[in-house]
Amino acid sequence: MHVKRIRVVQDVLDANTTIARANRQDFDRAGVSVVNFMSSPGSGKTALLEKVVPLLEERLGIGVLEGDVQGQLDADRLARFHLAISQINTDPGFGGECRLDANMVRSALPSLPLEQLDLLIVENVGNLVCPAEFRIGEDVRVMVASVTEGEDKPLKYPLMFRTADLVLINKIDLLPHLDFDLKKLERALDAVHPGVQRMYVSARTGQGIPEWAEWLFALTRERIEAELIVG
Amino acid sequence: MHVKRIRVVQDVLDANTTIARANRQDFDRAGVSVVNFMSSPGSGKTALLEKVVPLLEERLGIGVLEGDVQGQLDADRLARFHLAISQINTDPGFGGECRLDANMVRSALPSLPLEQLDLLIVENVGNLVCPAEFRIGEDVRVMVASVTEGEDKPLKYPLMFRTADLVLINKIDLLPHLDFDLKKLERALDAVHPGVQRMYVSARTGQGIPEWAEWLFALTRERIEAELIVG
Repeated sequence: MHVKRIRVVQDVLDANTTIARANRQDFDRAGVSVVNFMSSPGSGKTALLEKVVPLLEERLGIGVLEGDVQGQLDADRLARFHLAISQINTDPGFGGECRLDANMVRSALPSLPLEQLDLLIVENVGNLVCPAEFRIGEDVRVMVASVTEGEDKPLKYPLMFRTADLVLINKIDLLPHLDFDLKKLERALDAVHPGVQRMYVSARTGQGIPEWAEWLFALTRERIEAELIVG
Repeated sequence: MHVKRIRVVQDVLDANTTIARANRQDFDRAGVSVVNFMSSPGSGKTALLEKVVPLLEERLGIGVLEGDVQGQLDADRLARFHLAISQINTDPGFGGECRLDANMVRSALPSLPLEQLDLLIVENVGNLVCPAEFRIGEDVRVMVASVTEGEDKPLKYPLMFRTADLVLINKIDLLPHLDFDLKKLERALDAVHPGVQRMYVSARTGQGIPEWAEWLFALTRERIEAELIVG
């Protein structure tokens, strides 16, 4: 029973890897840098996008793919920006799938003007477990950890933190009101992903958002430079 | 492919229901009331247990079953109390299972002195999607929603909120520092689960904890009264 289960899981992941690779090829062809954007529910992913997009929308063609179990609340919040937005709902799965996978992203690609985009941000379902397991064809993984969630999350959800390329430590404006030890979080981060890049940000006050915007901008420039060298 | 997937999922849920029923029978035989305790990562489940257990440990035999992807940080935090604690780690699944199921709980039962317990609290994996799909043989579901997570979570994770018997609205002490509208949360709650019982609590200040303790105590009394009538 256990062996059979592992085989089924392996098949699912193999199929996902194949489709993720096809997505990757489409993104490369269109010259789009793709961010898989992940966190717990309510860590502030959408609020951070509301802050960072205005710093980039005049310089980059930006697309957002919203992944939610149900509804399109986040897409509605982003509708006022100069963005291509598409919504994926995962609720046709039982109770709702807990993450996006490569195939869901692939199904949504025709609804996005890939050729006009430089940057595609895929806002995954709020969850610290399942989304980490499924590559979607992304260039990088950016995750948000809110200081309100406690210092121990990297130790409790290691795969998510281990596979992140950048950790945004959000709601930093609330620190004076919390019993929270930043050093403990730093130690936990380094225990599961030594030296992983991190930025302290606040979607509320805007702290750290310009630095994150430059990081995203640099991501798209790296791609263009690599294309110039190759092509 | 889609039909096949649905059938596999249905088989998994049917098997889970059967095992949950067996757990339920064991709990009934031992006279234990069981709480399936769920929330996002970092909503404060363990912190709330640290506050409520001292109000109950002299009146009730209490057990806690800790569900985590990896590690036993929460179990360690509770070790100072008069409790029976057992730990389940879900990481043998790929990347780590995102929830407890009836079989995981069943595997852990021999490690708990059920006959000596009145109340068993099962602290599920921090996640607003998957845990809602799997009954474990519980009497009630208590979920925690932290005000730091925003007002929209019931609309985005409806199954979790719809199947909760009690919603603890936690970190209420942080309200003065947040742009948070309690009325909006109330409306979202009532939209997915009209009239669901809710309590405003703070694990930090202790607000609302005595009321929750009485709710849990009453749960065990109801069982004893029902047993007296039957028996």
